[in-house]
Amino acid sequence: MSRVYNFSAGPAVLPEEVLKEAANEMLDYDGSGMSIMEMSHRTKTFDKVIQDAEADLRDVMNIPDNYKVIFVQGGATTQFAAVPMNLMSKNQKAAYIETGNFSKKAFQEAKMFSDKVRVVASSKDKNYTYIPDCSNLPIDEDDDYVYICENNTIFGTKFHTLPNTKGKPLVSDQSSCFLSEPVDVTKYGVIYAGVQKNVGPAGLAIVIIREDLIKEDADLQFKTPTMLKWKTQIDAKSLYNTPNSWAIYICGKVFKWIKAQGGLEAMKKKNEAKAKILYDYLETSKLFINDVRKEDRSIMNVVFRTGNEELDAKFVAEAKNHNIVTIKGHRLVGGMRASIYNAMPVEGVQALVDFMREFEKENLK
Amino acid sequence: MSRVYNFSAGPAVLPEEVLKEAANEMLDYDGSGMSIMEMSHRTKTFDKVIQDAEADLRDVMNIPDNYKVIFVQGGATTQFAAVPMNLMSKNQKAAYIETGNFSKKAFQEAKMFSDKVRVVASSKDKNYTYIPDCSNLPIDEDDDYVYICENNTIFGTKFHTLPNTKGKPLVSDQSSCFLSEPVDVTKYGVIYAGVQKNVGPAGLAIVIIREDLIKEDADLQFKTPTMLKWKTQIDAKSLYNTPNSWAIYICGKVFKWIKAQGGLEAMKKKNEAKAKILYDYLETSKLFINDVRKEDRSIMNVVFRTGNEELDAKFVAEAKNHNIVTIKGHRLVGGMRASIYNAMPVEGVQALVDFMREFEKENLK
Repeated sequence: MSRVYNFSAGPAVLPEEVLKEAANEMLDYDGSGMSIMEMSHRTKTFDKVIQDAEADLRDVMNIPDNYKVIFVQGGATTQFAAVPMNLMSKNQKAAYIETGNFSKKAFQEAKMFSDKVRVVASSKDKNYTYIPDCSNLPIDEDDDYVYICENNTIFGTKFHTLPNTKGKPLVSDQSSCFLSEPVDVTKYGVIYAGVQKNVGPAGLAIVIIREDLIKEDADLQFKTPTMLKWKTQIDAKSLYNTPNSWAIYICGKVFKWIKAQGGLEAMKKKNEAKAKILYDYLETSKLFINDVRKEDRSIMNVVFRTGNEELDAKFVAEAKNHNIVTIKGHRLVGGMRASIYNAMPVEGVQALVDFMREFEKENLK
Repeated sequence: MSRVYNFSAGPAVLPEEVLKEAANEMLDYDGSGMSIMEMSHRTKTFDKVIQDAEADLRDVMNIPDNYKVIFVQGGATTQFAAVPMNLMSKNQKAAYIETGNFSKKAFQEAKMFSDKVRVVASSKDKNYTYIPDCSNLPIDEDDDYVYICENNTIFGTKFHTLPNTKGKPLVSDQSSCFLSEPVDVTKYGVIYAGVQKNVGPAGLAIVIIREDLIKEDADLQFKTPTMLKWKTQIDAKSLYNTPNSWAIYICGKVFKWIKAQGGLEAMKKKNEAKAKILYDYLETSKLFINDVRKEDRSIMNVVFRTGNEELDAKFVAEAKNHNIVTIKGHRLVGGMRASIYNAMPVEGVQALVDFMREFEKENLK
């Protein structure tokens, strides 16, 4: 068995220690005589798994008590609908910032619910290679919320400064930067993330909601499926129906792994160091191009290309011989993408840059 | 490590062979150098996993070509909303048969969408201990569908004869009897099941939909989240967003296990034999009571009680010493429940009955 350097944007690399623990516990979790997959979600044993997971996440992110945390199914994409369904008041009005594919999709979903949803800033003009200035946006007094996708997986950009929402709740899709660095939770109304990028297996989203934003049924504007109502999930402590217990179990292990690594400050330091190796090389490369505005670079997803599709394909193919896999860029932008999440070791990034140098030498004419 | 006899109603016992394979492949699935949990859902390797899973399921259930199969998140509970959202025409009218907790919940969810949804038969009068006569129900010409929960996990009943729907599409929640015996798919409009009872880990539902019932966006009556639209998932072959890839992988293994066991005919034979051991004993027992009408008994969930709550609690506690766990009944009915799904070996049922006999001898006064 040989492990590879897996640069997938998601599902993505997980800590090897976590995988080994999961394998060891597969037939008998903690003396229960069964796998977590076989265990009723109403048992004390599973209750401890989910409660520990929430407690560790709260600890790692320093989540204040007036924020609720839920573990739900359907991925971030289901939250694209849950956000307007749960947050819209009679105004049915919200401001979206368009910085890539996923904020665009979130906007389109919200638009299905209300015509008064609008894009207040966009970086579409330069193919989403930057984050627009959000210091003075046309946010209205009756906007229910302001929406961002904080890290743009496909385009390799990130909000390093949060928008000035003029007092309106900020809703952030943090899927591809979740737990990559410390965040000040108090600056957000709602944070959510599909965990399959930086934290765990696919099939689970974590939603963190400021208490005062939670609506009673009577205040919801649309016919909202019970499972999509945040209040249902909050009241039931994520156990309204059977949750994705396996994913919660794995995420719980990853939270503990992050703590053991030194928490989010340490993750940030490690992630910045990894990203620096790649960006430093890209700045000097005469073959590879990265178009992203320097101050908006993501430290999770680094995109690059040669400008020649055939050469890009050759790079992706040859990379495999160096144990470097899932490095192809998203179909919307082409080229390559290195997703260097928490669990990607610095050795993986170094191996990638070493190969890029070698490839440049051989292919630069 | 010692495995237990796990009578949980779900998540529930899985084949040990499947768990062992999953543990062995945890760090390196099929030479990919990574876990399935780490693998992009857009890779050829995962594509084969999901395509094989669908092909094996179609084979096992003998699903005709004019039925679509999707793997979705949110459990059966999300389908309680998806059913009216996807199936209602302008009539917004449907007939529900109430045979327990989950059909009641499904009805209540549908009621949120339309006042014209109604219960056309119920066994509530006798605490859901039987399946009502459904040979001549007040189904209207403009009903969009007729809804049942085919096996009632909490109450231990099952439809052994499907309702006469007078030509309307039958929608069946098969969560707790899915793949327990052969079914004639052509008798249904829609079959769906949360897999965490008889098939796999929690976090995945399988929906089987007759082609002619799939609606275009323009024909949907309600503002339906993209992720809840069956057509979205069908068109994207369950890959509209990142699916619960781990659960699909495990279910795929279970489908292959079922085939290796001889398919659904063999499962049925084995399941009936296991249920017979329990019911035969219950019929002769002077301590344990099973109220379910004989012809409506479930072969998946067998409920029983002593009629004395303290004695029930004593039974549950002492059962643990015999390696018999998660045998407590649902809080709605109390007593005990033995869920004897496909992966429960006959030895487990025998061990349970042996203990019941012993307990009866010691506690019958």
